[in-house]
Amino acid sequence: MRVGTLYGVGTGPGDPELLTLRALRVVRDADVIAHFCKRGRAGNARTIVAAHWPEGVMELPLAYPVTTEMDRRAADYRDAIGRFFDESAAAIAAHLDAGRDVAVLSEGDPFFYGSYMHIHVRLAPRYRTEVVAGVTSISGSWSQAGLPLMQGDDVFTVLPGTLEPDALTRKLAESDSAAIMKVGRNLPKIRAALEAAGKLDGAIYVERGTMAEARIVPLAERDDAPAPYFSLVLVPGWRGRP
Amino acid sequence: MRVGTLYGVGTGPGDPELLTLRALRVVRDADVIAHFCKRGRAGNARTIVAAHWPEGVMELPLAYPVTTEMDRRAADYRDAIGRFFDESAAAIAAHLDAGRDVAVLSEGDPFFYGSYMHIHVRLAPRYRTEVVAGVTSISGSWSQAGLPLMQGDDVFTVLPGTLEPDALTRKLAESDSAAIMKVGRNLPKIRAALEAAGKLDGAIYVERGTMAEARIVPLAERDDAPAPYFSLVLVPGWRGRP
Repeated sequence: MRVGTLYGVGTGPGDPELLTLRALRVVRDADVIAHFCKRGRAGNARTIVAAHWPEGVMELPLAYPVTTEMDRRAADYRDAIGRFFDESAAAIAAHLDAGRDVAVLSEGDPFFYGSYMHIHVRLAPRYRTEVVAGVTSISGSWSQAGLPLMQGDDVFTVLPGTLEPDALTRKLAESDSAAIMKVGRNLPKIRAALEAAGKLDGAIYVERGTMAEARIVPLAERDDAPAPYFSLVLVPGWRGRP
Repeated sequence: MRVGTLYGVGTGPGDPELLTLRALRVVRDADVIAHFCKRGRAGNARTIVAAHWPEGVMELPLAYPVTTEMDRRAADYRDAIGRFFDESAAAIAAHLDAGRDVAVLSEGDPFFYGSYMHIHVRLAPRYRTEVVAGVTSISGSWSQAGLPLMQGDDVFTVLPGTLEPDALTRKLAESDSAAIMKVGRNLPKIRAALEAAGKLDGAIYVERGTMAEARIVPLAERDDAPAPYFSLVLVPGWRGRP
């Protein structure tokens, strides 16, 4: 009996036109489309492919059991999220065993800080898999901002805003260019770290990059109110351009 | 009189299906398609969009005056490449002034170490511009390799293989995950740095990721012969997964 293929499909950062031709084809040919979401809400990846949703396809929403506000280092969080990925993988495996191809939507790029990878590591040893690379949120954001970040021999670093202040400052100072993710409630800390590293000037705040309601401003003009989940700070490098 | 719009168009890393819907639309609607190449050779970006090449579109090849083997820090190199970008920008500006929309193809993502940004900074102050984000070579490579690189609060660093050995080792040791670009003749140094940082195990060598002739092997199984320009080394992080 035929066993299905598991696809991790990058949907790009938000603008539905940033979907790749391959992603579109996999979504259209899938028997089942799975997507991560918060309970009772359409996930962003689902919204991005909405215009291309195939008629009659089976839909498998995977609703996170926890919120982003929980401490990721807490044992409770790790238990709950680990169980959630186990159960999600089992639900997907049941479809694969029944011969159905399953496309798991993943905002941005599936392997760039995406939830899909937790499914992938659980199922790749047993099933045929294909990962469809996508445009990341950082590429979408610096493109929309018209802000070239790195060139030539620049070092580029992706930093979580959750780092301790000292580590954040040091890593910013040591990198030519950077993108800071997980901004949320960390804006005052990020601002202080950029100032200490001498890189506040030029830093750009991007909220919901490439989405309809995108907001792009110099970080110096943004107040310290908590940022939404889909926001980041871009720190351009690229000194000594020819 | 109408003035044209300048588009920086990411073509993705090599697989023509990793072109975005937006890139395809911009290419199809352009009056002029410009692309970087080595003298007498079709550039990779040109090859990637070949299947979608619009009939009758004007083509503007921009042939690099220097080779990748030249020392980037040399004054001669900087003069030659600076002049080349000035002349390329002027040629594009002439089309824009004549009311033609110009799409500049850029392999991967235009602002991720791409040549397009040198055109962008020269023309963006004077013309309407749009940058179409693309899938980067690193996303394409880790996707094809089936290798999740980073998760949660991991720090991810993009490093040029041209760094001095000590700096390379230190930055590898301080980062959870990394991608090393500009492998070329730097393989022995990269291998030594990974070994010193305790990260040779798990490092993956990818040559021409997502292209038809892609080659993916553990770095430990790759000899030290010079690597082609389109190769990189991926260093997975992602410890303590749930």
